[in-house]
Amino acid sequence: MMRINGKRLLADLRELARIGAFKTGVDRIALSGEDIEARRWLVGKLAAAGLTASMDRVGNVLGRDPKAAKAILVGSHTDTVPKGGWLDGALGVCYALEIARSAIEANAPHATGIDVVSFEDEEGTYLPFLGSRSFFGELDDHEIAVARSKDGAALAPALATIAAEPPPHRCDAGRYVGYLEAHIEQGPRMEAGGNRIAVVTGLVGIKRFRVRSRGSANHAGTTPMAMRKDAGAALIALASGFEEDMRRLAGRDTVWNIGNMTFRPGVANIVPSEGEMLLEFRDIDAVVMDRAAARFRARVAEADRGPVRIEIEEIADLAPTALAPRLGAAISAAAAARGETPVSLASGAGHDAMIVARYMPAAMMFIPSIGGVSHDITENTSDDDIVFGCEVLADAVSRLRESS
Amino acid sequence: MMRINGKRLLADLRELARIGAFKTGVDRIALSGEDIEARRWLVGKLAAAGLTASMDRVGNVLGRDPKAAKAILVGSHTDTVPKGGWLDGALGVCYALEIARSAIEANAPHATGIDVVSFEDEEGTYLPFLGSRSFFGELDDHEIAVARSKDGAALAPALATIAAEPPPHRCDAGRYVGYLEAHIEQGPRMEAGGNRIAVVTGLVGIKRFRVRSRGSANHAGTTPMAMRKDAGAALIALASGFEEDMRRLAGRDTVWNIGNMTFRPGVANIVPSEGEMLLEFRDIDAVVMDRAAARFRARVAEADRGPVRIEIEEIADLAPTALAPRLGAAISAAAAARGETPVSLASGAGHDAMIVARYMPAAMMFIPSIGGVSHDITENTSDDDIVFGCEVLADAVSRLRESS
Repeated sequence: MMRINGKRLLADLRELARIGAFKTGVDRIALSGEDIEARRWLVGKLAAAGLTASMDRVGNVLGRDPKAAKAILVGSHTDTVPKGGWLDGALGVCYALEIARSAIEANAPHATGIDVVSFEDEEGTYLPFLGSRSFFGELDDHEIAVARSKDGAALAPALATIAAEPPPHRCDAGRYVGYLEAHIEQGPRMEAGGNRIAVVTGLVGIKRFRVRSRGSANHAGTTPMAMRKDAGAALIALASGFEEDMRRLAGRDTVWNIGNMTFRPGVANIVPSEGEMLLEFRDIDAVVMDRAAARFRARVAEADRGPVRIEIEEIADLAPTALAPRLGAAISAAAAARGETPVSLASGAGHDAMIVARYMPAAMMFIPSIGGVSHDITENTSDDDIVFGCEVLADAVSRLRESS
Repeated sequence: MMRINGKRLLADLRELARIGAFKTGVDRIALSGEDIEARRWLVGKLAAAGLTASMDRVGNVLGRDPKAAKAILVGSHTDTVPKGGWLDGALGVCYALEIARSAIEANAPHATGIDVVSFEDEEGTYLPFLGSRSFFGELDDHEIAVARSKDGAALAPALATIAAEPPPHRCDAGRYVGYLEAHIEQGPRMEAGGNRIAVVTGLVGIKRFRVRSRGSANHAGTTPMAMRKDAGAALIALASGFEEDMRRLAGRDTVWNIGNMTFRPGVANIVPSEGEMLLEFRDIDAVVMDRAAARFRARVAEADRGPVRIEIEEIADLAPTALAPRLGAAISAAAAARGETPVSLASGAGHDAMIVARYMPAAMMFIPSIGGVSHDITENTSDDDIVFGCEVLADAVSRLRESS
């Protein structure tokens, strides 16, 4: 079995964190100069380790073990949200680098190699899962041509800056026996439970709605209550009913959020004429998701029969993704062999593994996030937990190589 | 008794509406060029009618009957909200002009004259009731020095444009036997009830609160519900409870409004870390107001004991204003003599009469607003109702002169 070098892993992570450093975090949004610099840094590290590595013209970095006909694909992403943390994505990529490098150093050639990937734009600056979708040929030219960031920046000119790179890496379907992605939890459950390793059972489905209400702007002093068409009050009643429904319908791990609410004109003495609300809910169980969606649609239809018009738009609908139990079992066994009983968790956030799992057996492993912080410059994990996680993942990779 | 000239009244209103005309409405915000032009137009009309008239250096226009030792003060305001209607304020001022002019034309001198006033900034662009408060010496220099519009424009430079005008008009305490203000209803009740004249019994009190909530921004997918500090959900629960309380505590005419609600950061997948809400309630009954305020404060205190901090700021607290029954009775009698049984209404909006009523007997009369529209360029009232209202108010003035 290979032995990973914990000090080298931490040094890599810290070196990578200097590219786009922002205070204690990093700002490496997809296809920015800093993002591309980080990807070129990774290509250099992979090549130095003995892999055949390049960045393609969508920004995906792939490092292949040149001596292997089959491989386990290990990786994550190196782009971040604006003013994000130093570990989100980078951790899984540096684990993959360290594991592939240690395997080559072990000098015990194996039919199943270790390939390393850093997918582009996992954070969805331009297109969610741009890189992993490209890797599996899911992206079309039209989608790329029209994509814009929420700030209005177009994807096409951002891609033009790396147009001279090789054509997109595509998944070599016969090569891969599976995909492993390690990530920080981005939540507080492991810390609260004292767990150092979590095996991810699946990724939750997400349904997200935009709700718009339209009534009439009336003087809030002179219009009797019964004669109003209050677009704000209608949204408050709907929001309150949604909270109530979700508490009743929720499974153990269901989560929901009303992330935004705005009224227009938005002053104290005018009855709101328009309102808008953003809400979502997530669960690993498709039955719970469908039941919650049906109840919400029924509530909206009921509200729309009142004096205010209510319209909803489903702006996201991702089905829950199950991960491969056999790969998860390898992570569990590896943790157990090091004296740690891993917890099983569903991932509440999206990851490239959601896309990859459509094409090959995929698994994810979490290590704890201090304070559950995510997408923030204060995001962190102890060095011990970082190194321990890489040891467990390396062992899991070794186990899978033996059984593949 | 004097006879008013309905055609001349309508012509004056239409001439005034051309100053600052915006589509079918007017844009004559306080101390703008258009507002000052309208006030100079009024001074000209009053002087031509035989009154001693001038605009002072806060913008108040006063026209005095030079032959009378006592007077009934009649008026309203000529400033508007941005893109407002042509009748809000202007109606009461043009009624006053027409009545004072008709009285002089009747050539039947009377010990009690008719003075005309147009108060500045009734709409509160810079300071609510700036003009009427100045008239009674309620404004101090510091308040003027720090006042700004909600767009950040300072009052002082706006006043500097008319600094060459005469010192502020002050109420001549011995002169006035009472104040009469006519206004459009700005609500739908008269139209719904088929009423052409309303006698205003009083002006409702207003309590207005800004509510701020502070929690933590967490990932809405990875943070279990029980571990959140959701500043948005806390506001929704508070808003919902407020609606419920108000329905239970409300008197017949109580009105309330949640005019604004905002969440930060305001995206679907982040638990809101901050929220803000603006709400108010109004009633003519101080007991109802106090009971509602106490219940709201108790609810806020209860909510603040949860995981989210809730703070409230009382941003307005106006006590209900009773108007003078004797003056209202004169309007009632005048309407009845013309075959119209007036309805009694509380005014849900604020008017200068609130300020004036502290210093002299004051009354208000409403005529209908088509569709209840207010503070909008589509605000309107039929010509017949406009003229009829002036006839009734003129008769009421005559009755009060006889009894004064």
